[in-house]
Amino acid sequence: MQHALPVTRAGDFSAWYQAVVNQADLAEESGVRGCMIIRPWGYGVWQRMQELLDRRIRDTGHENCYFPLFIPLSYIAREAEHVEGFAKEMAVVTHHRLKVIDGVLQPDPDAKLEEPLIVRPTSETVIGAAFHRWVRSHRDLPLLLNQWANVVRWEMRPRLFLRTSEFLWQEGHTAHATALEAREETARMLEVYRSFAEDALAMPVIAGEKPAHERFPGADNTYSIEAMMQDGKALQAGTAHYLGTNFAEAQSIRYQTEAGDLAFAHTTSWGVSTRLVGGVVMTHGDDDGLRLPPIVAPRQVILIPMLRDKPEDAGVVEFCEALAAELNRAQAFGEPVRALVDRKPGRAIDKRWTWIKRGVPVICDIGARDVASGNVTYIRRDQLRNGEKIQSQAVLRQHFVEQISALLGSIHSALHAAATQQLKSNIRTDLSSFEALTAYFKSGDEEFRGWALVPWARPEAEALAKVEQQLKSLKVTVRNAPLEQPPIGNQRCVFSGQPAREYVLVARAY
Amino acid sequence: MQHALPVTRAGDFSAWYQAVVNQADLAEESGVRGCMIIRPWGYGVWQRMQELLDRRIRDTGHENCYFPLFIPLSYIAREAEHVEGFAKEMAVVTHHRLKVIDGVLQPDPDAKLEEPLIVRPTSETVIGAAFHRWVRSHRDLPLLLNQWANVVRWEMRPRLFLRTSEFLWQEGHTAHATALEAREETARMLEVYRSFAEDALAMPVIAGEKPAHERFPGADNTYSIEAMMQDGKALQAGTAHYLGTNFAEAQSIRYQTEAGDLAFAHTTSWGVSTRLVGGVVMTHGDDDGLRLPPIVAPRQVILIPMLRDKPEDAGVVEFCEALAAELNRAQAFGEPVRALVDRKPGRAIDKRWTWIKRGVPVICDIGARDVASGNVTYIRRDQLRNGEKIQSQAVLRQHFVEQISALLGSIHSALHAAATQQLKSNIRTDLSSFEALTAYFKSGDEEFRGWALVPWARPEAEALAKVEQQLKSLKVTVRNAPLEQPPIGNQRCVFSGQPAREYVLVARAY
Repeated sequence: MQHALPVTRAGDFSAWYQAVVNQADLAEESGVRGCMIIRPWGYGVWQRMQELLDRRIRDTGHENCYFPLFIPLSYIAREAEHVEGFAKEMAVVTHHRLKVIDGVLQPDPDAKLEEPLIVRPTSETVIGAAFHRWVRSHRDLPLLLNQWANVVRWEMRPRLFLRTSEFLWQEGHTAHATALEAREETARMLEVYRSFAEDALAMPVIAGEKPAHERFPGADNTYSIEAMMQDGKALQAGTAHYLGTNFAEAQSIRYQTEAGDLAFAHTTSWGVSTRLVGGVVMTHGDDDGLRLPPIVAPRQVILIPMLRDKPEDAGVVEFCEALAAELNRAQAFGEPVRALVDRKPGRAIDKRWTWIKRGVPVICDIGARDVASGNVTYIRRDQLRNGEKIQSQAVLRQHFVEQISALLGSIHSALHAAATQQLKSNIRTDLSSFEALTAYFKSGDEEFRGWALVPWARPEAEALAKVEQQLKSLKVTVRNAPLEQPPIGNQRCVFSGQPAREYVLVARAY
Repeated sequence: MQHALPVTRAGDFSAWYQAVVNQADLAEESGVRGCMIIRPWGYGVWQRMQELLDRRIRDTGHENCYFPLFIPLSYIAREAEHVEGFAKEMAVVTHHRLKVIDGVLQPDPDAKLEEPLIVRPTSETVIGAAFHRWVRSHRDLPLLLNQWANVVRWEMRPRLFLRTSEFLWQEGHTAHATALEAREETARMLEVYRSFAEDALAMPVIAGEKPAHERFPGADNTYSIEAMMQDGKALQAGTAHYLGTNFAEAQSIRYQTEAGDLAFAHTTSWGVSTRLVGGVVMTHGDDDGLRLPPIVAPRQVILIPMLRDKPEDAGVVEFCEALAAELNRAQAFGEPVRALVDRKPGRAIDKRWTWIKRGVPVICDIGARDVASGNVTYIRRDQLRNGEKIQSQAVLRQHFVEQISALLGSIHSALHAAATQQLKSNIRTDLSSFEALTAYFKSGDEEFRGWALVPWARPEAEALAKVEQQLKSLKVTVRNAPLEQPPIGNQRCVFSGQPAREYVLVARAY
C-alpha cells in the first residue's frame, strides 16, 4: 500500500519519526549542534500548548515571571556540592566580547569573565537565591511562580523535540510553609499535566511516582506522567518534584512562623517542554504523516479551492472565504474555530497532501461542483483511508457549519480512544518473574514491546545496584509506580524476590 | 507634599525611575551582571503586551517560529566582514561541560568547543542561513516570520528594562521578491508599532526615518517610533529596517523569478522589547508610583475588603467576590475585565498603597458601610489626588458594573491625552540656528529639556563627521525624520547651513 511517507512505523519507527517531523514542517536541524529550528507549523502547535497550559497554571494560582538566562558558576558549584548525581553537561560562557586579532574574529582575551556564567539547564539555583531574599514571614508563603523559558543541556545524541541541547519549557517553582502544602502542590501540578495531556493532546498517560534511583537530584519525591509511543516505548511527558527542605537548606530559604520561630520552607518544581510535540507525533501520527488533536492544531479546518483557470474560479474562492469566515465565527472546545483557505499558488492535490502530512483534522477540497450543489466535501484526517482509498464525505454546507464543533470533538475522542486502546492493551501484567520479563524484553531489539506492570520491593543500596544491572541488561527502566495501584497482596519483587511494596511500570523509554 | 515614593520626578528622575520599578514590583537586579529578574507584576505587563502585539503581528500575515539561542562564530564573522559598525559585545560560549579539578568546579578543558558559540544578540545571521535553504522560487515569497525570544548584548551600564544584558523581545524577519513589497512591509510594521504604542500603551510616539548615521548596520533604511519620557528624553520604542538585498547578498538568499532568472530577495527586520515596560513607567508614572494603561494592566480593578475582625467581615468578603465575578463577566476593550479581590493578610490601607504604587487603574476599598448601602467607593489611579488629598468616588454598585468599560476607557484616554499634551507642548520648532539649539540644550544638564524639530541637510562623510561632533557637544542625537513633515521650503540645515532636505527631531535620549 502506498503512503504519503517514504517509511512506515512498522518498517523503521525512528526513520518514520524523522520523516513526519520533516514532512509536517515541524522542525529541522539548525546547523548549530543539537539546536533545532522550530518551523511555523511546529511552533504553532507549541504555542497552542503554551496558551492552554498557561491558563491552567494561572488558574491554579501561579504567577508568571522571568529569571536570567545566565547562572553564575558559584551558584552551580554550591548545588554540585549539595546534590548527588548532578549533571555537568552545560554551556559555559567565558567571554563577553569578540575581537579581530591577526585578521580573525575571536573571543577577546581582555574580555574574559572573572566568573564563568552557565546557560541555565534549569533554574532552581537562581530562583532559590531570589526566594531567599523574598521569603521572610509565613505571610509571604506560598510563593507560586512559573516561567516560560529556553534552557540548555548539552546533548551528545540529539533528536528533534525529544532530546535537543536547547529546548523550550515552563518551569514552576513554589515555596510553602508546610510539607503537606508542598506535597499537595506537587500532586496538583501532576494532575494539571495529566489532565492537560489527556484533554488537550488526546494523549493518555500514567501518572505515578518515580523510584528512588530515578528521582530528580535533590528531590524527596519525583512524579511523572508517562505516555506510550506507537513503538511501545515510554515517553516521560512531564515531571513534578517535591523538594522537601533540601533546596531551602542549601539556599537558606527560611521564614518566621506564626509562633515566631524560624523554619525552612518546603519547595517544589515541575515542568513540561517542547518534548510534548514529539510525544504528539509518536502518539497520533500514522504512515501518512502527522495527525493533530484538534485542540492544539494551529488550523483545524483547511479549505482548498480547486481552481481550473476558468470563470467559475472566482465563485469557488468566494465560497471558500465565506465558509471560512462562517466557521471562524463558530465555536469548538469553547474557543473560535480555526479555519483557513489555502490560497497559495500550486495544485490542489499537492496542497491536500501537504495538509494531510501536517495533520490538519479536517481538510476540504472545494470545487465548482460543490459550489453549485451547496455541498462541502471533507476528509477526516483521523479516518483518512478506507482500505487503500482516501475517503471523503459530502454534506450540505449548512450542516457542515452546524456540526463542525461536534466533528472536531469526535476527532479528538477518536484519537484519544485509539491511543488509550494502544496503551491499555500493551501493559503486560502477567510477567511475574525476571525470566518472563527477560523473555519479553530480550528478543528483537527493534520489535514492538509494550510495558510491564510488575511487583517492586523498593530496593536500596546494594540490592538496588543489582536491580539496576538487571534493568540495564534488558535495556529498560522503571518508569513510575502508578498512583492507581492494584492491591499488592503477598507479591514478591520480580527483581529481588523480596516482599513487594507496590507495582511499577517497566519499559523501554525515550 | 507627601507622596508614596521617597523621590520625585522633579527631584531626581533617575532615582525616581528606580523607585517606581522597585516599589511597583516590576523587576530587580538578579546578582548576574546586567541581567534582571522580571517579577510577576512586571512580567504580567509584558505578557499583556506580548498577547496584544502577537495578535497584530499574526493578523498582518506573519507566522511565529523559533531559531536557536546560539550562533556559530563563523556566521558572526561573515557578518562582521560585511557590516560596518558591527558591535562586538556578546556572550561567548566556549565550553560544554563543567568538571571538578583539584576540588574546584570549572569549565572542563577537554570539553572546549571547536568553534565558539555566540548567544544571539539578534538573529539576522541564523535566520538568513535558513532563508537561504528555504527560498527557491518566487512562489516561496513573501516569507513572513516572527519570533519571541531572549537576546543578549553585553551592557557595561545596565538599567532595568531600558538597557539590560539579557532582554526579551520579538524580532520579525521577512523576505520579499521586490523592493517595493519589502518597503511596504517595513512601513506596515512601523505602523503596527505606532498604533500599538498609542492604542495599547497610551504612549504617543513619533514615527520616522533614522538619519544615515543612526541606521541599523546593514540596513538601507531604518525607521523608529520615538516616545517622550517625562524628563524630556527620547526613548526609541521600536524599530523597523528595510535591509535591501544586503543580507540576501551576504547570505545568498536568491529565488527564481517568474521569468526564470535568479534574483536576490529583499529582506526586512523589526523588533520591540521589554524596554517598552520602561517606556510605560516613564510616560505615565507619577510621584506616587506607576500608572498603568488599563489595556496592559494585569489587573484593572482591585477590590480591597476592609475587615475589622467583626461579624460583618464575611459579608464584606462575599460582596467583593460577587462584585469581582460580575466585573469579570463584563467586557472592556473587547476582552473580559480583569478584577481581583486582594484577600492576602495585611491592613487594607497598606494594600491600597501597594496597588497605587503598582499602578492599577481602579482601586476599591470596600467596607461594611459600602455593603450596607450597596455602594462602591473607588479611586481612579490617574486622578489620585485633589490637591494633597486622595480622592475617591462612591457610586451604586450596579452603576459601577455598568460603567466599568466606560471608566477604563476614560482612564486610557486621560493617560493618552496627558502624554500627548506633554509630547506636543515640548517639541520646539523655533530653534532655527545651532546657537539657539546650543542655548537650549547646553544649560543645566539635569533640567528638563524637550525635543527640537530642526531643518536637516542629510550631511554625509566629512560634513556628517562635523555634525556628529556638534551633536555630541550638546549630548543629543538625531532621533528621526518624522513621516509627517511640514513643508521644508528654503530652510537651511541648522548644523551645516546647507539647503535642508527635511526636518528631523533632535533630543537627549535613553
